[in-house]
Amino acid sequence: MEIDVNKPILDRNERLAAENRALFDEHGVFVLDLMASPGAGKTSTILATIAALRDRYRIAVIEGDIASKVDAEKVKEHGIPAVQINTGGACHLESDMISRAIDALDLSDLDLIIVENVGNLVCPTEFYLGENAKVMILSVPEGHDKPYKYPNIFQIAEAVILNKVDTMPVFDFDEEEFRSVVRSLNPKAPVFPMAATKGEGVDAWAEWLAARIDAMKANLAARQ
Amino acid sequence: MEIDVNKPILDRNERLAAENRALFDEHGVFVLDLMASPGAGKTSTILATIAALRDRYRIAVIEGDIASKVDAEKVKEHGIPAVQINTGGACHLESDMISRAIDALDLSDLDLIIVENVGNLVCPTEFYLGENAKVMILSVPEGHDKPYKYPNIFQIAEAVILNKVDTMPVFDFDEEEFRSVVRSLNPKAPVFPMAATKGEGVDAWAEWLAARIDAMKANLAARQ
Repeated sequence: MEIDVNKPILDRNERLAAENRALFDEHGVFVLDLMASPGAGKTSTILATIAALRDRYRIAVIEGDIASKVDAEKVKEHGIPAVQINTGGACHLESDMISRAIDALDLSDLDLIIVENVGNLVCPTEFYLGENAKVMILSVPEGHDKPYKYPNIFQIAEAVILNKVDTMPVFDFDEEEFRSVVRSLNPKAPVFPMAATKGEGVDAWAEWLAARIDAMKANLAARQ
Repeated sequence: MEIDVNKPILDRNERLAAENRALFDEHGVFVLDLMASPGAGKTSTILATIAALRDRYRIAVIEGDIASKVDAEKVKEHGIPAVQINTGGACHLESDMISRAIDALDLSDLDLIIVENVGNLVCPTEFYLGENAKVMILSVPEGHDKPYKYPNIFQIAEAVILNKVDTMPVFDFDEEEFRSVVRSLNPKAPVFPMAATKGEGVDAWAEWLAARIDAMKANLAARQ
């Protein structure tokens, strides 16, 4: 006899994710789940996004890592509320971790929460946290062949940020092939080339995100 | 009541890993489990290692990926036997996958099997496959702060390859800090700076690996 041990874990996760979602809706908070490999530039992208949007939205960050709190500290230096989750050994965030993290935030004072998931192209794809959108970052040094090897994350992401494009001359990265494979896996997802630490290409991404936030707010207002 | 669902899975994995290990010993085959993030340069490091050691050892490669067989094809182009494992969704290799892969290899004709684990800094650390050594690669673009965030893999690795060192001028990578944190986590592990695609720094790493292979062979001979 085989028992699918993953099923009850996922069921519980979905139930808590729905509770998170209801809470976010109640306060009109848009939640972004940002996924990428270790070192692809999640924190840099978050800092660049904060710089682009902090005048329009009240932002907080939830940082997920196996260990350490270096990322939350970087965000706090910019005067943005940040909560660090340490997963111990787990390779992804789950909804109960998000539930506990939002206890430390004042949702009525926020428009946008950016969740930095654990650096991993596999595990985070399977867990709904109650977010409005999952977005992924691939960085140029990782190589243009990654969509072949990790198709799920490219399929589940609503947008793909291609980071560290300033290093393209150094690496043998075929942007055309990359875009073509991403398109075949996920025809609707826009690809945003970016160099987050230099602020390059941030505007197009920030406008896409702003449009999503405004649409959610309009949607919630229409429901009332 | 809580059931630790991971325990029976790990127990079964350990049992099959021991069977793999017995088979490798019987044939005098050294097995290296190579772990790294997606795009850190596992396949390039394998190709560079093959180039350095193919005159001294008979080598085969087991490639682990979520999907695709691009890596095994790259290795086969160099006339080296390669088996591709596709894990479906799993973020790491397990011993039963290795058992099936070695069915496709002639162990009596091999000295070294290099296993390329799934690109991930978390999951592969927990699974013993029957290997002689786990080694990890960190690439410079991932950043020098990674040992803080993923301490387990740095602790379990017997050697750390620092790849893409030719791109250090492009990235804000503090090699001294990196080495100091690695040393505090794992005082015995040597760090090998390398630019695998350029062949830089490969010799020191290859000599370390050769010494390990020779020691295993001497050890096995002494047992008979």
